[in-house]
Amino acid sequence: MNSMETTSPPEVKHGVNFSAQRGFPTKLKSGLKETFFPDDPFRQFKNEEKTSRRLIKGLQYFIPIFEWLPNYTWRLFISDLIAGLTITSLAIPQGISYAKLASLPPLIGLYSSFVPPIVYAVMGSSRHMAVGTLAAASLLIGQTISTVANPEKEPVLFLHLVFTTTFVTGIFQACLGIFRLGILVDFFSHSTITGFMGGTAVILILQQLKGVFGMKHFSTKTDVVSVIKGIFANKHEIKWETTVLGVIFLIFLQITVFVRNRKPKLFWVSAIAPMCIVVISAVFVYIVKGQNHGIQIVGHLDRGLNPLSIKLFNFESKYFSAVLQAGFISGVLSLAEGIAIGRSFSVTDNTPHDGNKEMIAFGLMNTIGSFTSCYMTSGPFSKTAVNYNAGCKTPMANLVQAILMALTLLFLAPLFGRTPLVALSAIIISAMIGLIKYEEAIHLFKVDKFDFVICMAAFLGVAFISMDYGLLISVSLGLLRALLYVARPAPCKLGKLSDSGVYRDIEQYSASTFPGVLIIQVGSPIYFANANYVKERVMRYIQSEQDKSGDAVEYIILDLSGVTSIDTTAIGGLVEINRSLEKKGIKMSLVNPRLEVMEKLIASKFVDKIGKESFYLSLDDAVAASQYSLNTLKKNSTYDQDSVQETNHLA
Amino acid sequence: MNSMETTSPPEVKHGVNFSAQRGFPTKLKSGLKETFFPDDPFRQFKNEEKTSRRLIKGLQYFIPIFEWLPNYTWRLFISDLIAGLTITSLAIPQGISYAKLASLPPLIGLYSSFVPPIVYAVMGSSRHMAVGTLAAASLLIGQTISTVANPEKEPVLFLHLVFTTTFVTGIFQACLGIFRLGILVDFFSHSTITGFMGGTAVILILQQLKGVFGMKHFSTKTDVVSVIKGIFANKHEIKWETTVLGVIFLIFLQITVFVRNRKPKLFWVSAIAPMCIVVISAVFVYIVKGQNHGIQIVGHLDRGLNPLSIKLFNFESKYFSAVLQAGFISGVLSLAEGIAIGRSFSVTDNTPHDGNKEMIAFGLMNTIGSFTSCYMTSGPFSKTAVNYNAGCKTPMANLVQAILMALTLLFLAPLFGRTPLVALSAIIISAMIGLIKYEEAIHLFKVDKFDFVICMAAFLGVAFISMDYGLLISVSLGLLRALLYVARPAPCKLGKLSDSGVYRDIEQYSASTFPGVLIIQVGSPIYFANANYVKERVMRYIQSEQDKSGDAVEYIILDLSGVTSIDTTAIGGLVEINRSLEKKGIKMSLVNPRLEVMEKLIASKFVDKIGKESFYLSLDDAVAASQYSLNTLKKNSTYDQDSVQETNHLA
Repeated sequence: MNSMETTSPPEVKHGVNFSAQRGFPTKLKSGLKETFFPDDPFRQFKNEEKTSRRLIKGLQYFIPIFEWLPNYTWRLFISDLIAGLTITSLAIPQGISYAKLASLPPLIGLYSSFVPPIVYAVMGSSRHMAVGTLAAASLLIGQTISTVANPEKEPVLFLHLVFTTTFVTGIFQACLGIFRLGILVDFFSHSTITGFMGGTAVILILQQLKGVFGMKHFSTKTDVVSVIKGIFANKHEIKWETTVLGVIFLIFLQITVFVRNRKPKLFWVSAIAPMCIVVISAVFVYIVKGQNHGIQIVGHLDRGLNPLSIKLFNFESKYFSAVLQAGFISGVLSLAEGIAIGRSFSVTDNTPHDGNKEMIAFGLMNTIGSFTSCYMTSGPFSKTAVNYNAGCKTPMANLVQAILMALTLLFLAPLFGRTPLVALSAIIISAMIGLIKYEEAIHLFKVDKFDFVICMAAFLGVAFISMDYGLLISVSLGLLRALLYVARPAPCKLGKLSDSGVYRDIEQYSASTFPGVLIIQVGSPIYFANANYVKERVMRYIQSEQDKSGDAVEYIILDLSGVTSIDTTAIGGLVEINRSLEKKGIKMSLVNPRLEVMEKLIASKFVDKIGKESFYLSLDDAVAASQYSLNTLKKNSTYDQDSVQETNHLA
Repeated sequence: MNSMETTSPPEVKHGVNFSAQRGFPTKLKSGLKETFFPDDPFRQFKNEEKTSRRLIKGLQYFIPIFEWLPNYTWRLFISDLIAGLTITSLAIPQGISYAKLASLPPLIGLYSSFVPPIVYAVMGSSRHMAVGTLAAASLLIGQTISTVANPEKEPVLFLHLVFTTTFVTGIFQACLGIFRLGILVDFFSHSTITGFMGGTAVILILQQLKGVFGMKHFSTKTDVVSVIKGIFANKHEIKWETTVLGVIFLIFLQITVFVRNRKPKLFWVSAIAPMCIVVISAVFVYIVKGQNHGIQIVGHLDRGLNPLSIKLFNFESKYFSAVLQAGFISGVLSLAEGIAIGRSFSVTDNTPHDGNKEMIAFGLMNTIGSFTSCYMTSGPFSKTAVNYNAGCKTPMANLVQAILMALTLLFLAPLFGRTPLVALSAIIISAMIGLIKYEEAIHLFKVDKFDFVICMAAFLGVAFISMDYGLLISVSLGLLRALLYVARPAPCKLGKLSDSGVYRDIEQYSASTFPGVLIIQVGSPIYFANANYVKERVMRYIQSEQDKSGDAVEYIILDLSGVTSIDTTAIGGLVEINRSLEKKGIKMSLVNPRLEVMEKLIASKFVDKIGKESFYLSLDDAVAASQYSLNTLKKNSTYDQDSVQETNHLA
């Protein structure tokens, strides 16, 4: 240190800025902006000077179809047409199967692939999303609503409640988007979604064993233990004919999946496989007169487009809590999944994607869907992946899907009534196997044990308790983790790297420390939840420093560079630290408080209390000042010692 | 920049350490230690070599009386004796008054100042804490238990349930201490406690108007609106005699407080004032035959020490949820308050204080108290402050209090039965006025608006809804704030200070930026809750940089120095950022990832994906590298420009 030789105090090149303070409106505005508008959404048109251009840009911003349709070409349409055809061939069997998961008439599933895709084509911001019903949400809605209305005994009431749920979901999702509360969706972490999807897949596969075994009685509960018990209790009902058919279909589907995984170009093989299974199985069962062998079929399906359902809503209070519960949970869940999927494809292709717009699009899709006999739709992963692989370029593919679905409903519906249930079960099982991402769980285990726990909590919770509890436990663990982070913000001890002004964690780098001086980088934030911890931790650093080196600590330098936020409880904590240190005769310096922190330190008179001279802008300045003052002291007490001590933990 | 003139790549002095990795057991151990043992509690004796000394030190650690008693002197005893006398003179009127708040017989309040202080004297770690009942907790317990048992119609059941509550509180508090869950108490911020105390003081003052006005009927609810309505409805009951007495007492008490505030040495004036009021008022009412004028008195009090109550517990399920609720809320609350008070006095005097030991002491105090007809005790602020001012040196003052209280119970109890209720009301009102800390609220408003909102939520919630809701709303707001912090960790744009290797926020300091290079300090942590935000924010920085300067950003340098923690969702987010940047032809460098972050980046193969050459240990190195590479590019394209651009926002 240069300062060791000088006798005048070391010169400070850059002082701390005590004057930079923002007014409350500025702070509030910037806080609100960062919280709700971090992507600065109106940037695209707020700077336009002409009102007309501004209007057009605004319209394009709020209704994305105006953005892409003016530049639409035949070339793009050919791509979208092929993609649309492919997803429709998936939409028909999935629509029928998932409707059965929700205990709804199969036609509702087909209706749900007609109206919502049109809405999404107009409002959706993602280029690749394919709209359809979700297996997990279907099961969740069916289960929750069946606690207040029996789908077999009161099918009309049940149906009306499902429409009401869809309406509630839609309004809720749209509100989240309008009020820019995408932040709520962010709290469903990747680990939670992975575990939840896996757990749902397991219980869905077990549910489908009913269809594969051709059983008539089955557990009404979904957890693994109840279902397996139920199967053993009714094992005399198992029909070998359906079982054999089911296994054959499943093997066929899994082979197509295998082919797709090997040769991604052959994605269409697995995409149209479910449709093939439906057609082949229907023909086969028709020929061999499957009914005589106990092979159940979907049953009669009427021709015709979606009837209006706007007058069927049921807001009676005795059902409403179940409706709200089903609507909120499935709404947030499908958003979390849908937005994550849309984002990942948009990143791969560098196409637009806007979480808040997606929420509004999903919300409108479900609101308008609920008026026209649809139940909850979202952007399911399997369908969206197929859409992407089939080369879709714009949401036009959803329009194609809607038109094809309308034609199906008008002319072909009765044919699909002949589909055997076992084929649908095989299709669901095959889709669900792909959702159990065990490699992902292994990856989590390797990288981050807590994320693994969060993931497994969702997986096991869903599989062994219920879907909503599993989700709740996992999200709570995530929140707990975030709170624990705030409560324990990982400070570290710094040392100086030789020949540089750079200070680094001495546990990570072999950096030099200075006898009598302790440099601590404080983790962020300093809040009520950790004010006491920070104090105890600083005291422990001092204690262990003295235990280790025998030198008494005379200077403590707190590096606040990384502290982005502080509150009054924590400022009180700093006052306490300072007072305790003073009692021990230790001097405290603070280095580089950031703007927000400095504002509060000034406002609370903390700066006046400990003095502006205790603030430094760089660690080098603070260390130099401490060295100078220690040196002066030492000279006075004719005591000297080697100044720099090497610690070499990891070199 | 030196690198601008050279043609070879700039030399990197210190490279990033990719090899420092800790095993899972090490990480787990350090995580658990930081979470539950941040103060390294066993340090004092775990390093002792002799087993006997280790045992003694351990005993001293766990049972603090062994620490201070061996060195106890006559001198210390004299101080403690005076302090003990003073707090007893406060304990008698407060004990009777607060018991009435809890709808309990007055004797229970006196019993509660006999046994618990003895326990605290043995187990307590604070030197200044004076044990007694709490006004707020008394009211809370009384209210909650009265929802399942009417204190007037079923007084025995009510009493037994209060003992059970005390027992539950004790066990709960001791468990918090044993399992080192002081972290839970940390979530009651200073702002919450300030607001809660103020709100409680307001409703307690209103409650006491019953006594001051000498009314017989009064609102059973505690919120401000109901109480004021109740007073107006029964205003014909108001007795002028008690009102006049009450006002006189109150003025007298407030004058003593005023004297104490002016001359802190005269603290004893206000400390013994309540006792004087009790004696004088009792004598006065006896002389003027107050009963004839409608002045109510406490009533007959039996002589004798605490009877055993261990067999009176009632764990019947129909009452147990109320018992649990009262026990948990008042338990956590009294801990939060008691620990904060103990800590603040210990800091002032530099005497020992240990939050976890306090929790165990409070827990034992209440458990043993519940066996001996006491209800919930803690360390109330008023009593502890008096104790401190009276010069107490050790918990011996509590022992003195216990002995004096025992003598009172044995010989003087009946005399205190003659105290008029109006005197008690005046004592409570006077104590409560001191708890409305409006200056503190103003301070919060000035320093931190969110803390002010948290404080006012507690205050208004308690005053206008109920105590538990007020507390719940305020704590939830605190948690919301902590979560919002994690969701929006305040990144900032850095620039270089001239003639130094120091990079600072350009909003705060006039620092130089480099064209084509964007340096962003990322806030901590990067978590699932903010992975998407971080990405959008980085993109917005790039966008606004290009909008402002017109230069395309070619390099982005993320300073991770302050990032203490990362999870898998956020690593996925970094991958997405990198992919999006690559699509735009922008190169990303990461500077100084800390140990934990680096471990996870390596484990997740992120380092392999973006290449070790993208990591730098110091911003200077990263900037030099970017300048070199930009310069080479520019030379090749025969395009040049001034390299350093001054931004001068706040100079």
